[in-house]
Amino acid sequence: MNAYDNPQAAQAVLENAKAAGLDPDRIIDQLKRLHIETPSWAYAEGGTRFGVFRQPGSAKTIEHKLADAAAVHCYTGITPTIAVHVLWDFPDGFDPALIEKAKKLGIQIGAVNPNVFQDQAYKYGSLANPKPEVRKKAIDHVRDSIKIATQTRSKFLSIWLADGTNYPGQDDIAQRRARLIDSLKEIYQAMPNDQVLLLEYKPFEPAFYQTDIADWGMSMTLCRKLGDRAKVLVDIGHHYQAQNIEQIVTWLIEEDMLGGFHFNDRRYADDDLTTASIDPYQVFRIFNEIVAAQQVRSRKFELAYMVDQSHNLKPKLEAMLQTVDTIHQLYAKALLVNRKALAKAQADQDIIAAEEILRDAWLTDTRPLVGLVRQQTGRAPDAIAAYRKSGYQQQVEKERANIKGGDTLG
Amino acid sequence: MNAYDNPQAAQAVLENAKAAGLDPDRIIDQLKRLHIETPSWAYAEGGTRFGVFRQPGSAKTIEHKLADAAAVHCYTGITPTIAVHVLWDFPDGFDPALIEKAKKLGIQIGAVNPNVFQDQAYKYGSLANPKPEVRKKAIDHVRDSIKIATQTRSKFLSIWLADGTNYPGQDDIAQRRARLIDSLKEIYQAMPNDQVLLLEYKPFEPAFYQTDIADWGMSMTLCRKLGDRAKVLVDIGHHYQAQNIEQIVTWLIEEDMLGGFHFNDRRYADDDLTTASIDPYQVFRIFNEIVAAQQVRSRKFELAYMVDQSHNLKPKLEAMLQTVDTIHQLYAKALLVNRKALAKAQADQDIIAAEEILRDAWLTDTRPLVGLVRQQTGRAPDAIAAYRKSGYQQQVEKERANIKGGDTLG
Amino acid sequence: MNAYDNPQAAQAVLENAKAAGLDPDRIIDQLKRLHIETPSWAYAEGGTRFGVFRQPGSAKTIEHKLADAAAVHCYTGITPTIAVHVLWDFPDGFDPALIEKAKKLGIQIGAVNPNVFQDQAYKYGSLANPKPEVRKKAIDHVRDSIKIATQTRSKFLSIWLADGTNYPGQDDIAQRRARLIDSLKEIYQAMPNDQVLLLEYKPFEPAFYQTDIADWGMSMTLCRKLGDRAKVLVDIGHHYQAQNIEQIVTWLIEEDMLGGFHFNDRRYADDDLTTASIDPYQVFRIFNEIVAAQQVRSRKFELAYMVDQSHNLKPKLEAMLQTVDTIHQLYAKALLVNRKALAKAQADQDIIAAEEILRDAWLTDTRPLVGLVRQQTGRAPDAIAAYRKSGYQQQVEKERANIKGGDTLG
Amino acid sequence: MNAYDNPQAAQAVLENAKAAGLDPDRIIDQLKRLHIETPSWAYAEGGTRFGVFRQPGSAKTIEHKLADAAAVHCYTGITPTIAVHVLWDFPDGFDPALIEKAKKLGIQIGAVNPNVFQDQAYKYGSLANPKPEVRKKAIDHVRDSIKIATQTRSKFLSIWLADGTNYPGQDDIAQRRARLIDSLKEIYQAMPNDQVLLLEYKPFEPAFYQTDIADWGMSMTLCRKLGDRAKVLVDIGHHYQAQNIEQIVTWLIEEDMLGGFHFNDRRYADDDLTTASIDPYQVFRIFNEIVAAQQVRSRKFELAYMVDQSHNLKPKLEAMLQTVDTIHQLYAKALLVNRKALAKAQADQDIIAAEEILRDAWLTDTRPLVGLVRQQTGRAPDAIAAYRKSGYQQQVEKERANIKGGDTLG
Repeated sequence: MNAYDNPQAAQAVLENAKAAGLDPDRIIDQLKRLHIETPSWAYAEGGTRFGVFRQPGSAKTIEHKLADAAAVHCYTGITPTIAVHVLWDFPDGFDPALIEKAKKLGIQIGAVNPNVFQDQAYKYGSLANPKPEVRKKAIDHVRDSIKIATQTRSKFLSIWLADGTNYPGQDDIAQRRARLIDSLKEIYQAMPNDQVLLLEYKPFEPAFYQTDIADWGMSMTLCRKLGDRAKVLVDIGHHYQAQNIEQIVTWLIEEDMLGGFHFNDRRYADDDLTTASIDPYQVFRIFNEIVAAQQVRSRKFELAYMVDQSHNLKPKLEAMLQTVDTIHQLYAKALLVNRKALAKAQADQDIIAAEEILRDAWLTDTRPLVGLVRQQTGRAPDAIAAYRKSGYQQQVEKERANIKGGDTLG
Repeated sequence: MNAYDNPQAAQAVLENAKAAGLDPDRIIDQLKRLHIETPSWAYAEGGTRFGVFRQPGSAKTIEHKLADAAAVHCYTGITPTIAVHVLWDFPDGFDPALIEKAKKLGIQIGAVNPNVFQDQAYKYGSLANPKPEVRKKAIDHVRDSIKIATQTRSKFLSIWLADGTNYPGQDDIAQRRARLIDSLKEIYQAMPNDQVLLLEYKPFEPAFYQTDIADWGMSMTLCRKLGDRAKVLVDIGHHYQAQNIEQIVTWLIEEDMLGGFHFNDRRYADDDLTTASIDPYQVFRIFNEIVAAQQVRSRKFELAYMVDQSHNLKPKLEAMLQTVDTIHQLYAKALLVNRKALAKAQADQDIIAAEEILRDAWLTDTRPLVGLVRQQTGRAPDAIAAYRKSGYQQQVEKERANIKGGDTLG
Repeated sequence: MNAYDNPQAAQAVLENAKAAGLDPDRIIDQLKRLHIETPSWAYAEGGTRFGVFRQPGSAKTIEHKLADAAAVHCYTGITPTIAVHVLWDFPDGFDPALIEKAKKLGIQIGAVNPNVFQDQAYKYGSLANPKPEVRKKAIDHVRDSIKIATQTRSKFLSIWLADGTNYPGQDDIAQRRARLIDSLKEIYQAMPNDQVLLLEYKPFEPAFYQTDIADWGMSMTLCRKLGDRAKVLVDIGHHYQAQNIEQIVTWLIEEDMLGGFHFNDRRYADDDLTTASIDPYQVFRIFNEIVAAQQVRSRKFELAYMVDQSHNLKPKLEAMLQTVDTIHQLYAKALLVNRKALAKAQADQDIIAAEEILRDAWLTDTRPLVGLVRQQTGRAPDAIAAYRKSGYQQQVEKERANIKGGDTLG
Repeated sequence: MNAYDNPQAAQAVLENAKAAGLDPDRIIDQLKRLHIETPSWAYAEGGTRFGVFRQPGSAKTIEHKLADAAAVHCYTGITPTIAVHVLWDFPDGFDPALIEKAKKLGIQIGAVNPNVFQDQAYKYGSLANPKPEVRKKAIDHVRDSIKIATQTRSKFLSIWLADGTNYPGQDDIAQRRARLIDSLKEIYQAMPNDQVLLLEYKPFEPAFYQTDIADWGMSMTLCRKLGDRAKVLVDIGHHYQAQNIEQIVTWLIEEDMLGGFHFNDRRYADDDLTTASIDPYQVFRIFNEIVAAQQVRSRKFELAYMVDQSHNLKPKLEAMLQTVDTIHQLYAKALLVNRKALAKAQADQDIIAAEEILRDAWLTDTRPLVGLVRQQTGRAPDAIAAYRKSGYQQQVEKERANIKGGDTLG
């Protein structure tokens, strides 16, 4: 029996939830309202520094990317937006007709990502570059991105910087920081009041000795210097080994500084693997903190849940469907946690009971639940299986066979 | 030839410094004014969770510890203070006569360290404990520590917490954080205006799933909620592997939030090894950032340089002499950096020249320089050799042979 | 509904297994024959270097430990043996009456663990110590342990060494290695033909610069020098961060050098947490490799599955029940993998299908299955719940209240 | 004063060495006979997955690379060979005339590196690929490389594989291993008796879940299955964080399985930075183990010392000069260790004395010594300074300005 296509099992899960004092209807509703943004670049070719393994049918144009993102939304129902990358998606400038094209496909353009790391000018950095003319070039590119975001009515401007140094002494760390602050202030000033700046951190790569925004503490400190609409973006793969990401998430929520996520997974470095493919429990724990903040502490915040992965081996669309399905399930598990019982066990300092309450949700098979949600919205319960049957892949392989271009990095 | 006893070589180093635009007299002066605090607990027995290897002559009483710290100061000239640990040093309360005893030995009592982790009450934490009565007990102990600091005219109250959890779900991370903030505020209120609270962070151990103050970002965020006299304490061993500590130091300086250091080294976890015994270049780079902040950006700050090590195998006093000598030398190297040439190479984006300028100081043999400084203050140039000749070790082994007690952990 | 007490759900799982070409009866049989050894030291007090939080009712004598191990076996049905630690369990020599006492409790004595790290003599190592007299002392202790193992008819002599150095230069690494080889050969010679030497590796702690058996490669190389009855012991917590343990397990199986496991979990260092409490997917993947070796490649091997944890906060017996339950379930998941379909997907290079087949087993809720197995052997389906109801904890707290001793380290 | 141009200081160092019982003439001789191989690909464009920053004058053809390698040898005197990369250097087949061209430039072709990772065929691996036809293609390429090595009279065939998987379940780890063994055996059979196979290991990247030769234990196990002329290649950057590389080196020497090195450095992952730019003490400790094996234990072995770096920011030739100079100095330091005194301190278990003896060599400024060696062989004492004055860079920038090609990855 297909585990997604088991409404009876789904009902059993919901009954258990009810017995735990949770509201089944609300769980279903929240599972329908989950909103994961997929990135345009995940549909195009990408790889490692050792090479790119090309896939037939990979997206070559922004139109292809929109179509692929729409296909993922079609089967999952929770990916109504696509993040865009200004340099890769609009190399010749943004064409407003794309807004309509997306709409017709049933999706919208989401977060706008400037690229200030690929041009030769950025050899020694972009917003923190010692040369004022390079900083200006980078700021100008971000200004252009802001304009595109305004046109597309995107709420989020998402900034990741490759800035940093490779060797001790290469540049003055404090001065790089000062330049970065100035550049970010200029950018923030240029943003309209309804846009949010998401600022990513990363402790390594491609700068190897020191990256200018290395951790959440640096990102938050910078955001605080800008204003209310600057928030921290947490990329799962951008941490030190053994770092407790869910604790960082909680701190950012409590400081009202969490802006969103880039979902992916990794074993060693920033491997950009499928979310939760290596450490699924971690993603569950992150969602658990978010749900706890909402349900237990009534925190109000809006998060941009975005995927940022680079599939060099897996078929790109299937990998994205698998990703979205996995995130959907892990969120479902977090919604199933018996908050009342957990609070009691914690108050009793009954560690084992508390842990088992968390694990009761974690161990629950949520495939039937996600399948039910899909069925209720007119979709097939098993997204990957349905996609495989659809013939989409074969079709785009044919259509895109002789089209060149579309290569991206990262 | 003993490398420390080479005034000619020292002069050559100073001439090179002069040629680099540095002021030799100022270098000598700064090397004399360097102030490293040694910790009372490093003179007593300590070990790992697998056991303690006892050393003849180890300090059993606070008087022994004062004597040992004074001996280290006697041979190095730069350790005029001793950090104290309230629980281990004053188990029966603080005796003000100790102030005079220290003075007679030529030293002073420095940072006061409360202990809120060893008592059975602290099983589930201290300042973040779910039970108000445990939090109160911990706060009361810290209040007592503040009183001792007032009596000893210590400037620094140094707080490290073992708080955290071992398992997902064990406690609510956000509520632990809220309790911690409240407790710290109470403590801060209790401190007189001339005391500075130093707040340490540590990402692991003895809490294994999550520590309540895991990194510099959390420590700084907490300090900011307290007031101007709360600063971050950087313990070298309390970081993730591969973390760039000197960058954190620079950020803290620029945010005016750096309070001081706990010096030690490690390979894997928080190994509490001799400073710079595993990665000497790292400590040089940290001092380089501090000196750059002072010399290039004219930043004003006062730092508590403290040693925090646990020598299970090395003879404790010799290990401390070695530590202090090493720190002295690495600071000397940082003082020898040609700042003007470095700034020029950085402006030229000449990475190799910049790195080589840093390394020119790094590669300089600074033993003659440190030896010269000692000679100028009436000391033997080679501290360890002089100590070995002195017979101090043999004497204390005899004197302390039949005295029991003094065991500490950590 | 209690998830363990759901025979209908268990049947559904078994039917799915059947549909996947697996034999439901064999799965049940294997789940009954799983044999996890619990360690005597997990029932006694233990903690971190920062202190021990004492628990009422913790085992003070070897008799207590036998009773506790028997209790765990009573509720789980898969822990019929207890590993013993010569120094801690038999401080006054081994009393053969214990064999009978264990038998009466329904368990047997399992692996014998010598202790050559705690005595003051071992400051600079045991089997690799530079001093021949210390090496002799250590070898003699291991010889005594072999004799005990002979008396108890234990199959396994399990050796973990704390040997290593803290500082570069402290000792000659190659000479330490040579001494270690000689000592191990002497030990191996002393073992009767029906005993197996299990040799553990650990990359850090309590030796911090270098441990003499740092990784599986070193352990295997040493075992190869000894003979067929020397095998590698894999302790989950004794690895570098990001190391792929299941691959090591596979290599050891293929080289016929895998002897067994010490189960536990950790986030940063060797934290000795409850198995799979931090990274459950990893333990599933390890079992998956073991089951694949048996089912796909028909490898024959006997493994000593042993728990090695140190619970400083969790109640010790409940923590052990939780551990055994978790291992039982993760093993069950590995037994549910559709091997035929997996092989086909792998041959087709269909990464996503292959991963999903693995995850189909992983995502299955195996609590009903484990509950069914317990019911079929006359046990309550939910081990922890049944234990909590039993009153055992209250009883031993009373009985052991005024008994002293039994402290262990590690 | 230029630190390299100080013969008096060099003499002082040699006198100290003599006083320590070392032979100054032998030290000088060993410093002259040190042989570091530079890699052809370090002179061509390379970068990270985020982009390549192009450098004027970078090598576009194999002739350029030979010229650049010869220039490095001209200024350092210790790089008489150049490692070649079959795919990148001889894309149209190997032209034997290159042997003569190299000879005229004063260098020789060294280790030959096949490339079995870049072709689209290698998406799922090369020597461990599930498809026999892909394995054959890879083996055929290596056979071609062996023929080139025969023509160039290269002693070393150096193999690094990108083989591995990205996801649990993707392929059968044990079967990959079996295929790899078969492929390597075929390759080994094809090698003439005077060639040595060097087998590299790497725990991550570009395969992210599992690499087929993850660590030294796997590489050694494979080499043992091949024969005497298969040895392990240690790449400094291919280790887990905190791993003790010098211990691995010692084990490999004692097992007679060490074949050579790829020198580079890193902070987080495989960053391919300049050797010793992040952790110089580590490289000193590695050399210390090698020198100890030769001097203390009279081990005989021949090592291939090779540089493997990828400079995306630093000027490539200067970076190589800096690298070779650094390695030269760190080797010099290892030669200066007072072996007799070290052995005595170790026998006395005087940790501090032993460590200080090691550090006495480490802290010695060896620039004068290396400068002296260069002067004695008719070179300028400061290699980088002399190169900068030579005008070579300006010349090749002009000559190579309009030549296309030469891009490499990795």
